[in-house]
Amino acid sequence: MSQADKAVVLLSGGLDSVTVLMMAKARGLECFTLGFDYGQRHTAELNAARELASRYSDHPHQVIQLDLGAIGGSALTSNAIEVPTAGVQAEGIPVTYVPARNTVFLSIAMGYGEVLGATHLMIGANAVDYSGYPDCRPAFIEQFEKLANVATTAVDGGASWTVDAPLMHMSKAEIIAAGVSLGVDYSLTVSCYQADSLGRACGVCDACRLRRQGFFDAEIEDPTRYQPGVIPQV
Amino acid sequence: MSQADKAVVLLSGGLDSVTVLMMAKARGLECFTLGFDYGQRHTAELNAARELASRYSDHPHQVIQLDLGAIGGSALTSNAIEVPTAGVQAEGIPVTYVPARNTVFLSIAMGYGEVLGATHLMIGANAVDYSGYPDCRPAFIEQFEKLANVATTAVDGGASWTVDAPLMHMSKAEIIAAGVSLGVDYSLTVSCYQADSLGRACGVCDACRLRRQGFFDAEIEDPTRYQPGVIPQV
Repeated sequence: MSQADKAVVLLSGGLDSVTVLMMAKARGLECFTLGFDYGQRHTAELNAARELASRYSDHPHQVIQLDLGAIGGSALTSNAIEVPTAGVQAEGIPVTYVPARNTVFLSIAMGYGEVLGATHLMIGANAVDYSGYPDCRPAFIEQFEKLANVATTAVDGGASWTVDAPLMHMSKAEIIAAGVSLGVDYSLTVSCYQADSLGRACGVCDACRLRRQGFFDAEIEDPTRYQPGVIPQV
Repeated sequence: MSQADKAVVLLSGGLDSVTVLMMAKARGLECFTLGFDYGQRHTAELNAARELASRYSDHPHQVIQLDLGAIGGSALTSNAIEVPTAGVQAEGIPVTYVPARNTVFLSIAMGYGEVLGATHLMIGANAVDYSGYPDCRPAFIEQFEKLANVATTAVDGGASWTVDAPLMHMSKAEIIAAGVSLGVDYSLTVSCYQADSLGRACGVCDACRLRRQGFFDAEIEDPTRYQPGVIPQV
């Protein structure tokens, strides 16, 4: 029997990336999950990622400290910018965009993969819900795969990298339906931009609304844990 | 008079990157330097970078905390691996290779550039002295430039990125000669893998030997500050 191919799966603690992890497992890949502590406002998402990895991954979750807040430019890493809760996606680039985030995350995943002998990278990038993010587009994923194939020692040894974003063209409802069929317990995931310390969602931020609409469209009961007294909005 | 184009220059505190900074200045670029605290064994190099930026750059040096040690795989970030001092470059990939280092550094520089409105990235990658490093080759730099041009919001606004490694084909002696002609005081730089807390060099590690040979070949007096009692080797 041949050894399983190894994959580094970016895991945030949110809904999308754990679905990617379960897809990687379903393909028979040996999975190493990687997450980042990059100055998010809350740690609920990081705690969720650890719990998800302990349930579903082959190895303990690895977290890299990365102070992207020092270069500024995003509501997710700066308290000076308000998180949008209007229920309307502004045109253009969302204020929650972290500059070069997916490029940085994939770069570090590539380094981790090189150390592990893993040449599959998997990421929950999605062009449907996040079309404003340049680093969530197919052209970006393709170009990063090309970069990986000139950037690393693994290639000198004859290996070739794949960078896969299996959610790219799926709606939130399709992602949720796929994850449920693969056995994901989404009550363990945190999507909310302003979750409390227990990981309970606010129910009104854009991430909460998008998520709740996904469960509604998938005709699956929303298992999200909300903060007391919250009436979730779509 | 038009506004100067802005550049993000990767600055390590070593000999090469400050030469790149001076080349960028000579081209009339407004320079922002960026360095990384990624678990190096000593902070002398980081202190040197701050000093070099305060002398030669247009803006204070920016340092990003980045714990690459957590993914292992290098003598520069792990005390478990011995720094080579044999005076002989081993074949293949040097043990001091940090997985995906230049990819990670350029990714974060790209994010910083996006925040600043800077679309020039400059890096001291060199294929002559470090031909074993995959991420110091021309193909890598070219591919990263292509990635930048699909990865960022700046491109949607019509900008285009350049990623430049002006030292790529220069010998250490040529780099030193160029830097001296541009006014670099190399006594402020630290190349040594095991410099002391004052930034003084050991004189015997591979980085020290390569540097000293460069001054010798350039027929320029070596201004390096060595630790007391050291007899520098080439």
